[in-house]
Amino acid sequence: MTNFISIHDVTDLQALIKSGLEAKENPFADQHLGKNKTIGLIFFNSSLRTRLSTQKAAQNLGMNVMVLNVGQDSWGLELEDSELGNPVIMNGDKAEHVKEAAAVMGRYCDIIAVRAFAGLQDRDKDYREQVMTQFVKYAGVPIVNLESATRHPLQSLADCITIEEFKTKARPKVVLTWLPHFKPLPQAVANSFAEWMNHNDVELVITHPEGYDLAPEFVGNAQVTHNQNEAFEGADFIYGKNWSSYTHYGQVLVQDPSWAVTMDKMRLTDNGKFMHCLPVRRNVKVTDEVLDSPQSIVIDQAANREWSAQAVLKEILQNG
Amino acid sequence: MTNFISIHDVTDLQALIKSGLEAKENPFADQHLGKNKTIGLIFFNSSLRTRLSTQKAAQNLGMNVMVLNVGQDSWGLELEDSELGNPVIMNGDKAEHVKEAAAVMGRYCDIIAVRAFAGLQDRDKDYREQVMTQFVKYAGVPIVNLESATRHPLQSLADCITIEEFKTKARPKVVLTWLPHFKPLPQAVANSFAEWMNHNDVELVITHPEGYDLAPEFVGNAQVTHNQNEAFEGADFIYGKNWSSYTHYGQVLVQDPSWAVTMDKMRLTDNGKFMHCLPVRRNVKVTDEVLDSPQSIVIDQAANREWSAQAVLKEILQNG
Amino acid sequence: MTNFISIHDVTDLQALIKSGLEAKENPFADQHLGKNKTIGLIFFNSSLRTRLSTQKAAQNLGMNVMVLNVGQDSWGLELEDSELGNPVIMNGDKAEHVKEAAAVMGRYCDIIAVRAFAGLQDRDKDYREQVMTQFVKYAGVPIVNLESATRHPLQSLADCITIEEFKTKARPKVVLTWLPHFKPLPQAVANSFAEWMNHNDVELVITHPEGYDLAPEFVGNAQVTHNQNEAFEGADFIYGKNWSSYTHYGQVLVQDPSWAVTMDKMRLTDNGKFMHCLPVRRNVKVTDEVLDSPQSIVIDQAANREWSAQAVLKEILQNG
Repeated sequence: MTNFISIHDVTDLQALIKSGLEAKENPFADQHLGKNKTIGLIFFNSSLRTRLSTQKAAQNLGMNVMVLNVGQDSWGLELEDSELGNPVIMNGDKAEHVKEAAAVMGRYCDIIAVRAFAGLQDRDKDYREQVMTQFVKYAGVPIVNLESATRHPLQSLADCITIEEFKTKARPKVVLTWLPHFKPLPQAVANSFAEWMNHNDVELVITHPEGYDLAPEFVGNAQVTHNQNEAFEGADFIYGKNWSSYTHYGQVLVQDPSWAVTMDKMRLTDNGKFMHCLPVRRNVKVTDEVLDSPQSIVIDQAANREWSAQAVLKEILQNG
Repeated sequence: MTNFISIHDVTDLQALIKSGLEAKENPFADQHLGKNKTIGLIFFNSSLRTRLSTQKAAQNLGMNVMVLNVGQDSWGLELEDSELGNPVIMNGDKAEHVKEAAAVMGRYCDIIAVRAFAGLQDRDKDYREQVMTQFVKYAGVPIVNLESATRHPLQSLADCITIEEFKTKARPKVVLTWLPHFKPLPQAVANSFAEWMNHNDVELVITHPEGYDLAPEFVGNAQVTHNQNEAFEGADFIYGKNWSSYTHYGQVLVQDPSWAVTMDKMRLTDNGKFMHCLPVRRNVKVTDEVLDSPQSIVIDQAANREWSAQAVLKEILQNG
Repeated sequence: MTNFISIHDVTDLQALIKSGLEAKENPFADQHLGKNKTIGLIFFNSSLRTRLSTQKAAQNLGMNVMVLNVGQDSWGLELEDSELGNPVIMNGDKAEHVKEAAAVMGRYCDIIAVRAFAGLQDRDKDYREQVMTQFVKYAGVPIVNLESATRHPLQSLADCITIEEFKTKARPKVVLTWLPHFKPLPQAVANSFAEWMNHNDVELVITHPEGYDLAPEFVGNAQVTHNQNEAFEGADFIYGKNWSSYTHYGQVLVQDPSWAVTMDKMRLTDNGKFMHCLPVRRNVKVTDEVLDSPQSIVIDQAANREWSAQAVLKEILQNG
């Protein structure tokens, strides 16, 4: 693995899941790998789990960690490259081009991990994944995606690890369900979860209101339905998430509270587990009753972010 | 010691003071205790001494440190729990409930230390110590108080260490004096100092203008007077601090500059030492002349924050 | 070396350059020097390269690093000392005096490194270098300048290292050229570069529009011209930088785009290398064509910030 931007950088998913579970058993077994190595964590956006779990995983591996909050610790970065006959003239509020910034960070860091959310204004721009693409192009060291405009692969790997731990069938039924929310949120977590589940040995069902179809390249072979109850029937895992519309890009088309997950709905499942990437708005997306029930595994899922990051960093360090 | 929220978590104060003084003599003697252990420092409010001294103490003990500035690095946390029939519906500006946030951080950290000041709007709310209580309830790992709504125990322990170092009598006279200030400040440092001195072998006098009584549970057996000069007579330690009113909660009732500490007042003492937790506004609360005199021990006191934190973390690590 | 505020703290420049090049060859050879030592990085202003390179250098040397963003992590600091009969009454927005803050940080840190830019409002104040002076006066530990009001010596040392690596003549011609910019920028980098080049074995030429003379103490023996093309002729190194006027203090007198560096101008040089401290605004100060050409060494120059910092920290640790 050179970079970790999406599932496409993973050669053997099952081996990576196994590596995460091994890290959980024995967190400090590979400290020699990171000795005198430095990871830079670059945040264009806020972070709690990703920030802490990646830092922790790197330290478990013996690495040094440097954190940079762009725009807060430093200044805004220009992301657009000049095109022939159309140079980018940097006379606005961005003081530095990513071309320099990424290249320089790449000289100080052995690995760079970057978080940069979708702007949700311009679909083409978001789906071009400009920040990740530019860091890969200019940094000269491995890049790890800490959630980009369209994907959150460290979350998805943690989700795979969690399903591996909690599944009671060889091929569980996994339901990705849209949840109501009043703010427009990115599609990244939902996209990424669908993409990874398409590569995992599960039966994937996606359920959402009309107008909330995810991009086809992420939906893959999943079964899609607008009937949430039908989707929940016999499910082993319910994966809740809100996302704004992809087709009516970045819009909140529906806030219908009947899409929230309740215990009544959980009873349709086969004693299914409830998963969510967090943060979750209680009693907006899902009721207290569900989150506080034994069927909720959201904390275990979040805890697995550490082992997901550790498996990825370990593989990058071994190849480096 | 499991948590360190207040003096009530301390079983043997004198032993803890001694442990702090030993750490000062030999800062790196216990580095094995913290190996592969991580402390998370969670700041809901600004910090200088507490931030640096706790980080330093943890590193002296061989720990890894992760810092999170809530609301700056991440997002606001909902602190209220749902009550029966009255669920907290999270449709406001708080994206995550402390129930999840604390539980998740507890999975990444061996110890969590939290700073969260009083809001000074609602006395009952502040004195319920919601943030500390919720972290203790949900994190599943030891919690250290980096200054809460009503207490600042790491400061108070540093104060005990400082008095131990500088006292010239077995049972010194210690005066906590209110100082003038134009902004409403929390009662935490004053409360906590009074509480700890009540458990220490000193004669405690508290002096303040009318309307500035601290809560009775903190005042304890201290002598209270509105006559500052009388209080200063024969004192061995003058501990200056401003606080807003507890009875007229959060209000600034008086700004009377005659309550500031001057050399004239210090001459009433028995060559008393001047202490203040810092930051201190020069020539508002206390004159340059006092702060720059040999009687001021505010820098030594601040330096002892490192050993206070180290004594506490050491005891938690030994029990862990 | 006790402090590292300017070239005047350097006893042997060539030895320091050599030490930087040795660190680059063997970054971890001196890890014993920093064991159980802590550096505090104090930022009054934003930083990317300086933040990361100094942190990295300190970690290469085995040090622990603590970062404090003043005004973001803590609160504003009062910098003015009281004068006889004219006490500074701290009833404004600054909650703590540098006298306390620096002294306390000095108790927690073995070395303190500080960044504090010029305000560009009051030349006398800026050129008194208040922040550096106060930290040197009150911290009680070595102070490293991470860019002050009038100087950026870690940058200048990195520039010396870079010139040493890339020069093809014993005594190269080095041209410091003013570049156009729409915002008022400090003179620090230009001042410092000129000052260090005056101590280095180079032929120094400074070129800028009228009204942009640097302070004479920095210009030293450099040749100064308003004819940029003439300056470029036969140059081995072009060092680009914008600065606001020193004589009309802090003002932008000229934005003339003809002062930007282009390939046409680079062709006047003797295959000269283009240097810039970064961040650089592309196509405002210098064209893409120059920055993306093999003549640009700005990334190598930035990478040398790590070795510059390491050489300085090493010398301070050895003396400590």
